[in-house]
Amino acid sequence: MPRFSFKVFSFVSIVIACVSLSSSKILRMDSKPKRPSLEKYNEMREEYLNTHLSRALGSDVLLNEEEQQFNTILMDLKAEELARGFENPFNFTPARHFFDTMKSVESSQLFKIIQKMPKGAVLHAHDTAMCSTDYVVSLTKWDHLWQWGEIEGNDLPKFLFSRQKPEILNNVEWRPVKDVRKEMGDDVYDSKIRHFFTLIVDNPITYYNNINVIWSKFEDLFSVFGPIVFFIDAWKDYYRQSLQEMYDDGVNYLEFRGVLPELYDLDGNTYGPIETCRAYVDVLKEFKASHPDFGCRFIYAPRKTVTDEEFDTYIPTLLKLVKTFPEFIAGFDLVGQEDKSKPLAYYAEKLLQVPEDIQFFFHAGETNWMGTSSDENLIDAVLLGSKRIGHGYAAVKYPHLLKIIKEKRIGIEINPISNQVLKLVDDLRNHPAAIFFSDDYPIVISSDDPSFWGALPLTHDFYFAFLGIASARQDLRTIKKLILNSFEFSTLDETQKAFAKQVWLKKWNRFIKEALKDHKSAILMQQ
Amino acid sequence: MPRFSFKVFSFVSIVIACVSLSSSKILRMDSKPKRPSLEKYNEMREEYLNTHLSRALGSDVLLNEEEQQFNTILMDLKAEELARGFENPFNFTPARHFFDTMKSVESSQLFKIIQKMPKGAVLHAHDTAMCSTDYVVSLTKWDHLWQWGEIEGNDLPKFLFSRQKPEILNNVEWRPVKDVRKEMGDDVYDSKIRHFFTLIVDNPITYYNNINVIWSKFEDLFSVFGPIVFFIDAWKDYYRQSLQEMYDDGVNYLEFRGVLPELYDLDGNTYGPIETCRAYVDVLKEFKASHPDFGCRFIYAPRKTVTDEEFDTYIPTLLKLVKTFPEFIAGFDLVGQEDKSKPLAYYAEKLLQVPEDIQFFFHAGETNWMGTSSDENLIDAVLLGSKRIGHGYAAVKYPHLLKIIKEKRIGIEINPISNQVLKLVDDLRNHPAAIFFSDDYPIVISSDDPSFWGALPLTHDFYFAFLGIASARQDLRTIKKLILNSFEFSTLDETQKAFAKQVWLKKWNRFIKEALKDHKSAILMQQ
Repeated sequence: MPRFSFKVFSFVSIVIACVSLSSSKILRMDSKPKRPSLEKYNEMREEYLNTHLSRALGSDVLLNEEEQQFNTILMDLKAEELARGFENPFNFTPARHFFDTMKSVESSQLFKIIQKMPKGAVLHAHDTAMCSTDYVVSLTKWDHLWQWGEIEGNDLPKFLFSRQKPEILNNVEWRPVKDVRKEMGDDVYDSKIRHFFTLIVDNPITYYNNINVIWSKFEDLFSVFGPIVFFIDAWKDYYRQSLQEMYDDGVNYLEFRGVLPELYDLDGNTYGPIETCRAYVDVLKEFKASHPDFGCRFIYAPRKTVTDEEFDTYIPTLLKLVKTFPEFIAGFDLVGQEDKSKPLAYYAEKLLQVPEDIQFFFHAGETNWMGTSSDENLIDAVLLGSKRIGHGYAAVKYPHLLKIIKEKRIGIEINPISNQVLKLVDDLRNHPAAIFFSDDYPIVISSDDPSFWGALPLTHDFYFAFLGIASARQDLRTIKKLILNSFEFSTLDETQKAFAKQVWLKKWNRFIKEALKDHKSAILMQQ
Repeated sequence: MPRFSFKVFSFVSIVIACVSLSSSKILRMDSKPKRPSLEKYNEMREEYLNTHLSRALGSDVLLNEEEQQFNTILMDLKAEELARGFENPFNFTPARHFFDTMKSVESSQLFKIIQKMPKGAVLHAHDTAMCSTDYVVSLTKWDHLWQWGEIEGNDLPKFLFSRQKPEILNNVEWRPVKDVRKEMGDDVYDSKIRHFFTLIVDNPITYYNNINVIWSKFEDLFSVFGPIVFFIDAWKDYYRQSLQEMYDDGVNYLEFRGVLPELYDLDGNTYGPIETCRAYVDVLKEFKASHPDFGCRFIYAPRKTVTDEEFDTYIPTLLKLVKTFPEFIAGFDLVGQEDKSKPLAYYAEKLLQVPEDIQFFFHAGETNWMGTSSDENLIDAVLLGSKRIGHGYAAVKYPHLLKIIKEKRIGIEINPISNQVLKLVDDLRNHPAAIFFSDDYPIVISSDDPSFWGALPLTHDFYFAFLGIASARQDLRTIKKLILNSFEFSTLDETQKAFAKQVWLKKWNRFIKEALKDHKSAILMQQ
């Protein structure tokens, strides 16, 4: 790669220049180094800029001729949006709250192209937050669903699948949702029930005035929504739909996290974590039969804030899961609002007992604080040997850890919209991952809980990362690097990785060709 | 310093541990490194944490016994505010907009202690934005001041000092402010006129929905306020008052920037940049006569967005200033909203002509963008040999420059409230300077335009930096380091630095003693 060697050469000559400047300073203490000529200045400036660019994520990626052509189209679209934003940042969607811009985002040409793009793997998503809201709403049309309380007003309703009417609760009777729908009309019911399945509100910045408010709404959401999807038939269908939506959004491999809740059926049976996991495995098998180019693994990630007794059930469950579903289980993590949870250090003794061939994927540093148990979880995540880190939002404040993260290639899972909606950052240009983009850190872009904010499984996050977090100068090479990273940092073994990449590359090449063809037709149409 | 050596030792042993982990990995490709014992884990964790802490700003500062006692008091106050914030971030003032919290900030015990603290030097402040609003309002009570237009409604009024009534403008007569005040009542007038002298509004986040809106209000402010302070007597008095307010806020040295506007008097004379600067020099001489422990220098910093012809007057003016006031002139800079201004590179050819013994202090990277002319100004600021960088908000996205900035000890002037009010960052915990705090970058805390947002000359910014940007673990050593940095990165020569530090240290020791005494009395009172 002659290009790279040139950069290295430039860097060396700059270092020499600096050294000679400082030694001349030592010789003549009070005099300043002489200013360079404009020619020399411009030369040095180019060297500095090249050194800067050569460190960026994607700078080592090569594009073939067709990719280069496509890159021009892509960068024209990006430049257009950037120019509009530079003129008036209020028009720059990554700088504003997603809830205020989600409609206008979807009319962006750049967004549409990224939507069609095969985008590799999603490595950070949660069990019950992957499906579109339309689909979740459609679950309330299923037979045997009962409702307690109203879906208007401030109190939370409850739902349950049952063959018979569930027992009266606080003097309030359960009613079949079918009846409520009939009374209210399907359209009205659908539009009202949606609010219980997402965090979307008007004026999100003032409505959610701090991180605790939104996390509490987050919990409410689960309490309403949980009993609907914990019905085993809904659970399976939800998962099937999740995989389909991932697939349709250009994802060909998924590693998702889940708590493995207790499921139930209409016959009064309940299902423990192993059976819940088996539901996944069965559905995945079916799905792969019709989608042989798709793969999926699961990270068992139960809740962090539990009693010690409850925690003590986790590791045995994990071991049993690994034994029962060795191919499906990728490893272990713990979930919950980090600032309100017990730190990883609290569980270190128990976590160290986990057999060394089971991998960790800890959430860590999903916080704005510095010098607290939340951000210091990053130290534990690294020391416990996490293969990847969930969020790592605070990692930029840990220079020593950053060095280790880079050297050991610990993947950092960046979830831009999640971090904005959950109140870590307002303007995505300020997302600390910008630093990761500018210095080739081992990152992947993911979506966390796209369902809760009405985002697609990956497209929205990819679009914001590319347009709003990466440099204006970063191009298709950066996108390709993110995709290659998503395979590299997965738990797939080398053979599986090669297969997944091959699947992706085939789709990618087809996508590039079609995009070039579409572009040519569009130009012809304009003439 | 045995403590420091211990840290270095720890770091080395961690590196060895990492290396041995990775080499064992090479030997047995697919097997994972064995998990450590809890004892070993805790030992490694402590090492990691210590390495992390040993890199932080201030970690190399030693505290004497009294300082250590005071540090306990200080950290108790800090911990209390942090705990309240950790419980509910809405109560954490650095996380919210300054306009919404300014009243409650002033009741903070930590704030009060920082207010009393001798805080060293202010190295980034602008000519007409240093005085309290009360003082600026008081200028409108001066004789010979005329008003055009109303101070109610949306249109901007105009002001002018003149012995006779100024000429009619757009069919509107000028009126003596004294008459308007009489009609309106002084209290009403004062409260209305204040709005033209600050950016403070209700609901600042929605009111200023992007950076351009606030910068445009910023310009409005100058257009109303300029002709008041450009009156030479007001100009001198404003400067005298600025020095006094700096002094009263615990600042003993100041390097401020100014555009050196044309001044006028009641006799129809106007004053060019040299005379305008002479006004500063004269006032400073008087001020130093009564405050021999105070010092001040000036950075000539005219506007960036001008015609080439106008720009061509800058360098000759600079040379004349340096020749006329060699002790007072610290160097050169250029000002203006960076995203809307010509980049430094545009002026490089001319700037390279500036004699090498005149120092640069360029504003650079005061932007949220990455990969644009605004943030790439950072490259020029460094290459042009800036002694310090104004803001450098985007510098964290430039890993190669960061290395040079650190090695060459280029001071980065951090202005927390300015960056929030001028829409770069909402939650100060997200301020990129957190990275500088965690890795001992050459930074100073300053205040930019405190008058425009009703902040004290340094206390508010210091308080937010210490509470909201620095780590929860960073203590008095970090504060001391910021103060020492403020002298180190000044333009004072070694003898002058020694004097300024001596002045500060005397005040500092007295402050520590008094703080300890006050604390003891407070405890006795409680008993």
